[in-house]
Formats: sequence, C-alpha cells, structure tokens
Amino acid sequence: MTGARAGSQPRGRGRPAGGSDARDRILAAARQEFAAKGYDKVSLRGIARTAEVDPALLHHYFSGKEQVFVSAMQLPFDPADALPLILAGPIEELGERITRFFLGVWSEPEGRGAFLALLSSATTTPAGAALLREFASDALLSQVAARLGVPDAELRVEAALTQMLGLALGRFVIGLEPLASLPTDDVVRLIAPTVQHYLTGELP
Amino acid sequence: MTGARAGSQPRGRGRPAGGSDARDRILAAARQEFAAKGYDKVSLRGIARTAEVDPALLHHYFSGKEQVFVSAMQLPFDPADALPLILAGPIEELGERITRFFLGVWSEPEGRGAFLALLSSATTTPAGAALLREFASDALLSQVAARLGVPDAELRVEAALTQMLGLALGRFVIGLEPLASLPTDDVVRLIAPTVQHYLTGELP
Repeated sequence: MTGARAGSQPRGRGRPAGGSDARDRILAAARQEFAAKGYDKVSLRGIARTAEVDPALLHHYFSGKEQVFVSAMQLPFDPADALPLILAGPIEELGERITRFFLGVWSEPEGRGAFLALLSSATTTPAGAALLREFASDALLSQVAARLGVPDAELRVEAALTQMLGLALGRFVIGLEPLASLPTDDVVRLIAPTVQHYLTGELP
Repeated sequence: MTGARAGSQPRGRGRPAGGSDARDRILAAARQEFAAKGYDKVSLRGIARTAEVDPALLHHYFSGKEQVFVSAMQLPFDPADALPLILAGPIEELGERITRFFLGVWSEPEGRGAFLALLSSATTTPAGAALLREFASDALLSQVAARLGVPDAELRVEAALTQMLGLALGRFVIGLEPLASLPTDDVVRLIAPTVQHYLTGELP
C-alpha cells in the first residue's frame, strides 16, 4: 500500500483522481456488494459503479474478483496463490499439507479474525452463509476437486472441508481442551488422516 | 406449559405468585446470566435472584442447571435424557448412533435454529464461545468420555465433536452441494466411520 491511509468518508462525487483513497473506496464498495449479493452475483463493474470509480481503476489495483474479495475481507492469503503450492506434491500427502496450511492460517491472529468474521456472518444470516458457500465453492473446492480428478471429487472435498471447519471451531473458536492446547504436530497426526481418507480413500 | 403466555415485561417488584409468568421470568433471567457469565459460573441461586423469585420455585420447575439451560436456549432435547439412550448399545456402533442423532436434530427447524443461535454467538463473542465450550464439556463431552473409559477419552470425544460441528456447518448452515442434498443414510455412511474412528479406533 502506498500513501496515507484514507478516511472512511468518501470524497465528494465525481470521478476520483485515484490513489489509496480510491482503493479504499473500492474495498468498501466491495464489502457492501458481497454482503448484499453473495459472491457469484457480484461483478467488478458493479463494484466500480458503487465505488464511483472507473472500472479500469479496479483492474489497475486487482487481478480479478477473487483478489478484490480477499482484500475486502482481509483474508490472510489469496487462494489463487496458495492453492497451487498446496496442490503440488504427492497426492498421498495432500491431507497433511491442507491440514498444516489451515492450522497455520488459523494460528495467526489476522487469519483467525478474518475467517471468524466469515463464520460469524455465515451462522448469523442466510446472506452470510451464501457468501461463504459461493466463495468456498468458487475459489477453493473446485480447484481441489479438479486436482483429484475423480467423479465424486466434489463430495470428497466437501467432506474434507467439514473436518477442517469443525477443527477450526473446536480448537480456535470454542477452545475445547485438551484439543485447543495440543501441539500442532499432534493435531496434524490426529486429523490429517481423516482429510486424506475423504480425499483419496475408499468411500462407501 | 400451563396458562397464558406471559408478556416480556416482568410484573412489579416483590415476590411473584408463581405460574407461567414466573417461569418465563426465570428463563429470561437465565438467558441473561448465561450470556454474561458462561455456563460454569451461573448458579440456580443467581438466576433466582435476577428473576426475583424464590429459589424453591426454580427447583419446582426445573431439575437443575442443565434443564434451565436447555429450556432457556430452547434446545430441542435435554442431553441428560438423550445421551443415556445414545450411549447404550454396542460401542462399535456408537459413531453411527451419534451421527444419526445429530443429523436428526439439525434436520428439524427448531433444533437447527437453537444450535445455530449457539454457533452464531460462539463465533461472534468470546462470551458466546465460553458458553458453548462450558455447556458442551459439562453436558455432552464428559458423559461420552466416561462411556469410553480410556485415558485419552476427552481428546477422542473432542475430535468426534469437531467432525459433527463441521458437518452441521457444511450441510445445514453453509449448504455445500452435493453434501447438503445427500440422503441422510449416505451422509451417515460417509461420516460415521470417522466419528467411530476417533472414539474407538487406533490413534497415533
């Protein structure tokens, strides 16, 4: 980020000169659009309209909708960058790589805060649930399913995600003991085999 | 419940005559106490004081703190009644009985609403998280752990709970497809073996 942090009030109407003020306006407009419409129905053009900026400026700051979402929601990583690294490597260790990455993100206060906000919104309003469903399907689940490349890949990835989400709830949100204080390696040994089983194991 | 439904405004100060009005005041006081203090630190005496009723009246309506909580939060079942039934029967099918019961409760609108309120509160405020942690530990986890009767029973039951919580999130809250539309029996076949593994399987 460059320049001084802009205030929360947008400047007067009309086409902005750009700069960090415009970027902040784009992110505020994006949060408003995502909260109202979910993920799938939001367009970069619509965000630009709400932010009252030229659509070209949006493309100057962001590579696409996913990156706008990641910035607007202050997610600690962009799935478009992180997933290829996680998906590369032996498929029989994919469960462990996913579990480790997920635990790492939730261990950091910023990551935890951003994901907790998504979960809080998803458990509080149907719009929040739709937003998480559509973003997770688009940016996460479909990529992992494509890597698996089997007919029931979607259900496998969703089963793995339920285990990851529940782990986050139990360890980091609800704080069940002894699970919450267990060393990360022990949590990986306990949970990663389940994730691996859902991804590549023999299912009924 | 007997008698007409009382309004939300308590009557004038002083010792009440009892009846459904007093019961509603007790439940309102209980919600207030649980929200402020979590589960463990709340006492029946404290609820009676906040509700301005004689503690004996509380014991007239409720068998204990757990039943007050279940009524105040409108949970669709009392763990004290349901758990003995689930825990009875062959231990090698405990994972399936737990998964089926859990899916059944979340399938009913009332059950879903009550548990969603607990999850929403747990993901929104630390007090909400503490309330769910303390109630789950007290009324659910410790009972199941006692049934297992092995040294690492607590961690086993918590691991099983993470899978149950994540399943509820994925299937009923976020609504991931195809998981959300999968017939119950297929969900049980997919998830129950994981629950059983955590409870009685060979862990690292």
